Amino acid sequence: MRISIVGCGAIGSLFAAHLARLDDVEVWAYDLNQAHVDAINAGGLQLSGVTELESRPRATTDADEIPPCAFGIVATKALHTRAAIAATAHAFADGAVCTVQNGVGNEEIIAEYVPRVMRGTTFPAGRIIAPGHVQQDTGGKTWMGPFEPKPAGMAEVEQLAALCTRAGMETLAMADARGAQWTKLIFNAATNPIGALTRLPHGVACDQTEVRTLISGLVAEAVAVAAALGIELDSDPEKLIDHARDVAYHHKASMLQDILAERPTEVAALNGGIVRFGKETGVPTPLNQAIAALIGGIEHSWTLND
Amino acid sequence: MRISIVGCGAIGSLFAAHLARLDDVEVWAYDLNQAHVDAINAGGLQLSGVTELESRPRATTDADEIPPCAFGIVATKALHTRAAIAATAHAFADGAVCTVQNGVGNEEIIAEYVPRVMRGTTFPAGRIIAPGHVQQDTGGKTWMGPFEPKPAGMAEVEQLAALCTRAGMETLAMADARGAQWTKLIFNAATNPIGALTRLPHGVACDQTEVRTLISGLVAEAVAVAAALGIELDSDPEKLIDHARDVAYHHKASMLQDILAERPTEVAALNGGIVRFGKETGVPTPLNQAIAALIGGIEHSWTLND
Repeated sequence: MRISIVGCGAIGSLFAAHLARLDDVEVWAYDLNQAHVDAINAGGLQLSGVTELESRPRATTDADEIPPCAFGIVATKALHTRAAIAATAHAFADGAVCTVQNGVGNEEIIAEYVPRVMRGTTFPAGRIIAPGHVQQDTGGKTWMGPFEPKPAGMAEVEQLAALCTRAGMETLAMADARGAQWTKLIFNAATNPIGALTRLPHGVACDQTEVRTLISGLVAEAVAVAAALGIELDSDPEKLIDHARDVAYHHKASMLQDILAERPTEVAALNGGIVRFGKETGVPTPLNQAIAALIGGIEHSWTLND
Repeated sequence: MRISIVGCGAIGSLFAAHLARLDDVEVWAYDLNQAHVDAINAGGLQLSGVTELESRPRATTDADEIPPCAFGIVATKALHTRAAIAATAHAFADGAVCTVQNGVGNEEIIAEYVPRVMRGTTFPAGRIIAPGHVQQDTGGKTWMGPFEPKPAGMAEVEQLAALCTRAGMETLAMADARGAQWTKLIFNAATNPIGALTRLPHGVACDQTEVRTLISGLVAEAVAVAAALGIELDSDPEKLIDHARDVAYHHKASMLQDILAERPTEVAALNGGIVRFGKETGVPTPLNQAIAALIGGIEHSWTLND
């Protein structure tokens, strides 16, 4: 059975490295990072940190090389979804594709290109520390379920989840995976851009009364949108935020790293996604709209000549 | 007649330099910038740019040296109001004090220390380019009126306004100066922190649809607060913002300069003031509250050890 990992950055590499350990799975990792791809083909893919392992997926920067696959796992940054799935869709003409990306809206784009789609949400996090070498910083589960408007079959969802679990990444197949997805979405959208805008570590931001109030305002809007969509959240985002304050007080938001490096952020799939679904359901989201506008403004500022 | 300028930065220096030209006025400029004070005492105070003049106010860093004055003009940054008026109040035991500072809330603080207070709003802007030397970048009028809860008499307001006008700074005495003050407040609060957070010049910010929508959201909240306070604005802040887009497209917000230099901003007297008066009048101001929280968060980030 063949599986292609579309986007082999930190998260994609976690899936690629684990799945390539299975004797009955052939993994094709697609990424545009030539040095990473070359290193994987030359010496394999190495994970350190929470997981220590080495395996040998195939890797390519040329989407046309990817043979027909039973499954795809899309793990690009949200803003590269369309380009990545447009290039690789041929490999999934008879397959099912699952996104494990941040935010919402990726499924909708993928569904324009392939016949059967899954929602996915994954909690592990890491970073590429050298070509072919990924540091896994945190563990955690993955949730997968059919994308309702153009669903993969539940049997396929269960098959992919079982493969991931057997490969060492615990994955739950669910008939409705929206609760997990929106719980992570709300957590990210309420904390990540706040860290980027204020430059405060998560715990310090939580301890600033006015900032914590703003975070709660962002959560409340998104919870109302989720409720209007009929989504039951996995857990209370407020509790997750307080828990993260306790266990990751000094954590700096990944979006802050993006801002400092002048890399496009995922705000459009986070706060922008909440705003879009808010409009569809008639739920006002002025604070998420404000945050999306501010981050979008920063991104635009990089295009100006001073 | 003696007048003390409390806070002799760029704006205070404009008033000090103009008023010191009048034969019947003795100007005492109070400021903690020792180099600026020394330069004024040694060689006088020089204005360039929109106005070219030199005059010789007295200057001091020691508030106790200031003799009793008929008038005070407070021109510190809003966050230094309390310290400045507490130190100089003795000079105004029989006098009237006018603020020409940005934002709202300064009058309330001044009124805790002196018997008679005026609101003031001034449009000229400039910057200290060397000790004793201020560049005036823009001209414009000044408005003065009694501060209602602890008012200076209207005759005093008219006397100080006439002195400023005769000295070359056109100043209007009004029974209700709140309209001018809130018009400038709303313009500043809706544009200055947006420039600071996005780093976009004013015109570019206006041309980003989402950012312009946010600016309008900030304006709408503040206009509602002004209406609840019974304040009739001088002009439509939306039109001022569009006008500034046309005449100052590349202008970068002064609050952005503060942020880049890690100097405390005036956000508490701008958006923070709108939020405070919103609470008093029962008008919701979530967007101004969000902006105040974000700028406050940035200011707090400077206190952290990385």
